[in-house]
Amino acid sequence: MIGDGIGLDDLPLREDLRGGTPYGAPQLDVHTRLNTNENPYPPPAALVADVSAAVAEAAAALHRYPDRDATELRADLARYLTASSGVPLEVGNVWAANGSNEILQQLLQAFGGPGRTALGFEPSYSMHPIIAAGTRTEWVRTPRRPDFSLDTPRAAAVLAERAPDVAFLTSPNNPTGGSIPLPELRELVAAAPGLVVVDEAYVEFSSRPSAVGLLEEFPAKLIVSRTMSKAFAFAGGRLGYLAAAPAVVDALQLVRLPYHLSVLTQAAARAALRHAEETLRSVHALSAERERVVESLRDLGFDVVPSDANFVLFGRFADARATWRSYLDQGVLIRDVGIPEHLRVTIGTPDENDTFLAASKEIVR
Amino acid sequence: MIGDGIGLDDLPLREDLRGGTPYGAPQLDVHTRLNTNENPYPPPAALVADVSAAVAEAAAALHRYPDRDATELRADLARYLTASSGVPLEVGNVWAANGSNEILQQLLQAFGGPGRTALGFEPSYSMHPIIAAGTRTEWVRTPRRPDFSLDTPRAAAVLAERAPDVAFLTSPNNPTGGSIPLPELRELVAAAPGLVVVDEAYVEFSSRPSAVGLLEEFPAKLIVSRTMSKAFAFAGGRLGYLAAAPAVVDALQLVRLPYHLSVLTQAAARAALRHAEETLRSVHALSAERERVVESLRDLGFDVVPSDANFVLFGRFADARATWRSYLDQGVLIRDVGIPEHLRVTIGTPDENDTFLAASKEIVR
Repeated sequence: MIGDGIGLDDLPLREDLRGGTPYGAPQLDVHTRLNTNENPYPPPAALVADVSAAVAEAAAALHRYPDRDATELRADLARYLTASSGVPLEVGNVWAANGSNEILQQLLQAFGGPGRTALGFEPSYSMHPIIAAGTRTEWVRTPRRPDFSLDTPRAAAVLAERAPDVAFLTSPNNPTGGSIPLPELRELVAAAPGLVVVDEAYVEFSSRPSAVGLLEEFPAKLIVSRTMSKAFAFAGGRLGYLAAAPAVVDALQLVRLPYHLSVLTQAAARAALRHAEETLRSVHALSAERERVVESLRDLGFDVVPSDANFVLFGRFADARATWRSYLDQGVLIRDVGIPEHLRVTIGTPDENDTFLAASKEIVR
Repeated sequence: MIGDGIGLDDLPLREDLRGGTPYGAPQLDVHTRLNTNENPYPPPAALVADVSAAVAEAAAALHRYPDRDATELRADLARYLTASSGVPLEVGNVWAANGSNEILQQLLQAFGGPGRTALGFEPSYSMHPIIAAGTRTEWVRTPRRPDFSLDTPRAAAVLAERAPDVAFLTSPNNPTGGSIPLPELRELVAAAPGLVVVDEAYVEFSSRPSAVGLLEEFPAKLIVSRTMSKAFAFAGGRLGYLAAAPAVVDALQLVRLPYHLSVLTQAAARAALRHAEETLRSVHALSAERERVVESLRDLGFDVVPSDANFVLFGRFADARATWRSYLDQGVLIRDVGIPEHLRVTIGTPDENDTFLAASKEIVR
């Protein structure tokens, strides 16, 4: 191959990237894939038909650039947030990008960067420190309790004392599953001198109210990020968004790449949103399945971290990596998230969960 | 609106972004839009049908994340590059992202950043310095000749002396239209101690050979970036790509956001590539039209910068902004790219070009 005599060491790669490995779980072709917190239910036929029709219409104008501001899509997202939270949001309160990762990257490009800090309570979403590194924002690691819950008074004190430019609160938290009650969220946002990003990628699986309810109280510092990947079963469509004061949206328009959202993404996401009610029904089924999986795992003798999301962290394993491999040998792909003695499993269909539980029984044996 | 009492000044925006305005030409709804170098020909019906069918199939798996490495799409792009350049490229030589802007951003995340420099010969593509700023890479401005051509021996000396970590060579150059002959490109790449990115967004409109032909000679420093926006009439689909040594692709995988390319983008771009031959026929029509527009403008007494792309820079106007406005008043949207005394017009359909030329006649009067 042309250039295959050249290695990474022959290139002027940034020093801080040397020796790194790309982020990402193995994409293996196994029967039961419960490793990336996808919604296991394929989109309903009516949604697929609607997405296809919308894209077919949009494709006729593929030679033209998309609406740079994605105004109609953001208006639809604002309507969805208003309907689900009761908080009256408008198009100016909402911004969208190719997955919530791009939302978070734009936030740190505008409000983080060299000489600034971002803080998270770990273990948490492992992309937060990676995006901080990618934007040269100094990452401040703060540990959770040994049981992975958040010690709110202590966390509030840390936020006040360390005063990060941007703090990430993940609710429900990935990969541990717990969420933060609204009064505690309020306490944390109040304590933080800088911006607070509440990452609600899994919020639809939780019965707790969304941080969107605090936007009116903290318009100059609260940002709520969301994704259509999980509850909306739209992981392949790549659509993340946020709700905040309109000035935050103005700030992101200074750093976003122009035309970042394709006409296909805008059309498909709008079509998927029209089926929100139907898609979100799978969320209730998955929450019920989560309770069944948690109970079954406990019956088998596992430690299970309480979860408000579509996944469960469980253990304890003397060698989590070896146990992950044992699951894979049984055709079940789950996730080794790097937390000692623990593994994470995504809640699948009842059949997939049965397969996982049967494999778990083998592993206990 | 919630939070509308908050302004940008109330937010902890990075100091270097204060007072900035978002990048982008006005998106106005006028009859003749010749301002963003789009291909004026809508995708052929067969392409639209193929894109729609591909997306419909992909939509059935929207609940799953896309192939993180976009392997099949990259293989198709490698085949296209091989067929058009005669240089045998493989999937490992090619990387793809949401528009060439994202390609360039990833390159500067990996090879630029704080403490590093990027250099361009201006006027050139105005996103280069913006992406440098967004990645905190110091931008080194180097002027072209007064007639916008590149003084190759002088440019080579500047590259050797300033030794930027990344140099941008744009061929054909946007917004001026000229391209760099291969022997001169070779001289420039040879002179640069750091990486050289040849931005070939408009290369299909040029009769000159592509810099892809130099990859074998300079595998440790040459990167060729491309887009499907222009020649492929795929601006709305957002697909940029590059050709380089596989180690460059490895480097970008350390900074790319995971799953950055949606299943829709991957499916639609592959479908569009299957129609390359048909789409690229419009390129020849546009090149012929360009010659007609250039001659007509010269006949009217305008100065026209020689162009190898699907746009033309022309003048001279005592007040370019006022002239831009006069065109708009006649229903013709062209581009004020900020070069004194000049405006840029995209080559459209024969009818659109006639409308533009008629408006030009009025302006001369």
